[in-house]
Amino acid sequence: MNQEKLFTPGPAQCLDSALNILAEPTPYHRTDDFMQLFLRAHQKLKSIFKTTTAQTLILNGTGTQAMENAIANLLNPQEEVLVITNGNFGKRFREIGQLYGLSVTELAYEFGTTYELDDVKEQLKVKKFSAIFVTHSETSTGSLQNIEQLGLLTKDCDTLLIVDTISGLVMNPFEFDKWHVDIALSASQKGFMLPAGLNFTCISTKALDKCKTVTRPLFYNGYLKNLQVLEDKNFFWTVNTSLIKALDYVLDYILEIGMDKIHDQYYQIHSYLTLNLLELGFDPYVKGDPSISLVVFKSSPKVNVVEILKAKNIIIAGGLGSHKDQIFRIGVMNNITLEDAKLIITYIKEAIDAI
Amino acid sequence: MNQEKLFTPGPAQCLDSALNILAEPTPYHRTDDFMQLFLRAHQKLKSIFKTTTAQTLILNGTGTQAMENAIANLLNPQEEVLVITNGNFGKRFREIGQLYGLSVTELAYEFGTTYELDDVKEQLKVKKFSAIFVTHSETSTGSLQNIEQLGLLTKDCDTLLIVDTISGLVMNPFEFDKWHVDIALSASQKGFMLPAGLNFTCISTKALDKCKTVTRPLFYNGYLKNLQVLEDKNFFWTVNTSLIKALDYVLDYILEIGMDKIHDQYYQIHSYLTLNLLELGFDPYVKGDPSISLVVFKSSPKVNVVEILKAKNIIIAGGLGSHKDQIFRIGVMNNITLEDAKLIITYIKEAIDAI
Repeated sequence: MNQEKLFTPGPAQCLDSALNILAEPTPYHRTDDFMQLFLRAHQKLKSIFKTTTAQTLILNGTGTQAMENAIANLLNPQEEVLVITNGNFGKRFREIGQLYGLSVTELAYEFGTTYELDDVKEQLKVKKFSAIFVTHSETSTGSLQNIEQLGLLTKDCDTLLIVDTISGLVMNPFEFDKWHVDIALSASQKGFMLPAGLNFTCISTKALDKCKTVTRPLFYNGYLKNLQVLEDKNFFWTVNTSLIKALDYVLDYILEIGMDKIHDQYYQIHSYLTLNLLELGFDPYVKGDPSISLVVFKSSPKVNVVEILKAKNIIIAGGLGSHKDQIFRIGVMNNITLEDAKLIITYIKEAIDAI
Repeated sequence: MNQEKLFTPGPAQCLDSALNILAEPTPYHRTDDFMQLFLRAHQKLKSIFKTTTAQTLILNGTGTQAMENAIANLLNPQEEVLVITNGNFGKRFREIGQLYGLSVTELAYEFGTTYELDDVKEQLKVKKFSAIFVTHSETSTGSLQNIEQLGLLTKDCDTLLIVDTISGLVMNPFEFDKWHVDIALSASQKGFMLPAGLNFTCISTKALDKCKTVTRPLFYNGYLKNLQVLEDKNFFWTVNTSLIKALDYVLDYILEIGMDKIHDQYYQIHSYLTLNLLELGFDPYVKGDPSISLVVFKSSPKVNVVEILKAKNIIIAGGLGSHKDQIFRIGVMNNITLEDAKLIITYIKEAIDAI
């Protein structure tokens, strides 16, 4: 393993055949051929979000831009929103919401844990919220939030269910329609085996109606403006044609394997890493359900896992912010195989044995 | 010439060696190596904008996003701004400004013409403007606006000079410091020989001070937040690492040739195309100074230049919107050579001779 490999929770190891597409001449965006490819990619994306009723958007920018887009396109200042936080990315939803003048109620949980449904129910009795924000797979901690049970609370009222599944989608099962989600967000450098640069938004009819009540939406990232592009088949601005062409290829690749099989493959790798790290004496960081997209354990005072693997050209991630040296995070996404996972465990075991 | 070639005014033919970088494994953004590359790229970009005093930002998204960023980061609702328009992209500045609640005064000129300095002076006597917006190279018409004489009007007062040089930079001379520009915008798919996906903003100290008075800036595209990233050497969100690595390569490529020589090369190609199209009887569309970045002529009822060249796998552009069939636009940017220009003229001449 001479070339550096990324087993980080996004960007991660890309699909080589998709990278090769990026080396091809960039397509011009104002041709029928490119517009057809663009429209087809949206249809495939719907199959990955598991929706037949929603609209999708493929926009420039990464996941944080998609989070900001949701807030700016759906909510007016002063509206009441509930934000469930148990990691850095939940906190980010709160921060952007406050910047946009929303009246934010935060249900804050300890990092690494997951939320309590009863707390949400309690909040819904106290106030009428325009939206609930939740992080499906919390990339900073590795916890997975149950989306389905939130959808049951919001499906018959005006409250929107806005889900950051930026690092969750593809690796973890996700059911946009069945779970009654209103907005789901993801990005190219997570489950989509590509470099960063594109984000994806799935929008329910209920969310689309809410959109129309917003007094000052974004221009470039305006939901209605960008849905109009798909309707008119005419771009108002330049899209990232190279990355979109590569995305179209990856969407075929994923759908040909099939979503169930993909989830199984990642689940096996996740289980293998988890069981072996437990066996080697590491303490798991996540309390409750773990996201399949990453394996997160507490750092050991005996061995520095990040450095051990870096010396073998395997890049994994430490914690974010104040958690930098307290935890390590191995991305279980994209091009990682069970063989890679075995090698990772072998290297860690060797280092422990050498103490 | 079997493979399709893009002689469109952006995206255009990319630099092959830069495209190959996109096929390499995507770098992880949270490493010292990548941060160093990112910081170096900003320094090189300053040499292209010709500034030693300003700050630069490399952000996700294309040129329109950069235009919106300037408005959102620098101006509060109700502020008075002057927008000079003589094409689609000037009109876009007006439209975004109005969406953000600015009080917009439009100095509108016929498409294809350029602005009159006396009109601007007149406006500055009537009102105190927070900013003047102008399009250096108007991609929809091919006209070039004199920036230097506007800078002389704004340099000693609070008014900001905000310049869209999205399709202007690299091909046309541009002097950020010398011309007293406050904000200049460009994008990867124009003079930078890359696919779309990144935009560039150059920010004067005067603009930076104005930034701090804005009550509700953007989050993901917030100028101050993103300048803080450069200061702290720590990303808050994922950047498009692959495209930034390719950008760093292209910046070296451009600077090694040298800005004066690059302008000369494009000028020669632009002149060759212009003189030969005139000789073939086509009517020029631009009245006044033409941008070197593109050659724009009125369509002829006798030959359809877009279709003639398309049959030879050379893609050029028609007009935008209502001008679709009225003009044709040949991009003079990136990988175009004098040989390509000669071939274009040969094909058009053959078609005319065959009538």
